[in-house]
Amino acid sequence: MKILGIDPGYGRAGWSILEKEKGKLTLLDFGCVETSKGLEHADRLKQVSDDIISVIKKHKPDTLAIEQLFFFKNLTTAIKVAESRGVVLLTASQNHLDIKEYTPLQIKQAITGYGRADKNQIGQMVKTILGLKEIPTPDDAADAVAVAITCANSI
Amino acid sequence: MKILGIDPGYGRAGWSILEKEKGKLTLLDFGCVETSKGLEHADRLKQVSDDIISVIKKHKPDTLAIEQLFFFKNLTTAIKVAESRGVVLLTASQNHLDIKEYTPLQIKQAITGYGRADKNQIGQMVKTILGLKEIPTPDDAADAVAVAITCANSI
Repeated sequence: MKILGIDPGYGRAGWSILEKEKGKLTLLDFGCVETSKGLEHADRLKQVSDDIISVIKKHKPDTLAIEQLFFFKNLTTAIKVAESRGVVLLTASQNHLDIKEYTPLQIKQAITGYGRADKNQIGQMVKTILGLKEIPTPDDAADAVAVAITCANSI
Repeated sequence: MKILGIDPGYGRAGWSILEKEKGKLTLLDFGCVETSKGLEHADRLKQVSDDIISVIKKHKPDTLAIEQLFFFKNLTTAIKVAESRGVVLLTASQNHLDIKEYTPLQIKQAITGYGRADKNQIGQMVKTILGLKEIPTPDDAADAVAVAITCANSI
């Protein structure tokens, strides 16, 4: 099966495609959706959706694994990220993906065994678990791989 | 021109269709999208989108007028409403509507001339401005009419 991992974001959202075949995990692809500051708000949301649709069409994942939102520096940012997350959930639902949501705590525990792990610890474990040469970059993409691994190891 | 007014919500979102023709405003239709508690989260978001698509197909509005989100009782609710709002913005963008966003303050001032007007004052003014026999119900629909009037009077 193939899992589309998403680290939700408005200006930038990480994505990954992880394959689980006979218990073996293989990272097939990963990247970031970056939305143009010059676009209107709704058009930036449409860009997120369009880019996710492209990834879905290319890789045909079975499942979306997406991080839940919890804490924020400010409410304006929270609202924009949540709007973008809603767009990703809708796009996945319209494309008939199963949807699995994980809290940051669940992801950190699944990847490192430690609920307060930092980004670097997550990245190092992602690299180790998948036998990669480097930690996927940028951070958003590494987080998107982490949520996909969390999903792969729980289903 | 026809304006689709939306009062964003997750369990319930109000909508209205307001026509502006030679300066005259006519309320053509209004209602509420209600999402089923029995559905998965993403499917509730898809229900919002599907219902809005039905309204767009029936009435072919030119413009979406939608309230911006500001203050909340709790963050969990805020996130769900924002996700649903993102879904509405995406749906409008995919259907080529112009998009106009208004703060609660802008709407209250446009409708009543008073930025701290309560729901009943808004409802009464909506009824008066449009020459209706009753205030549209429920509240969510009346709010969706109010944002459409705000838009109609500013373009």
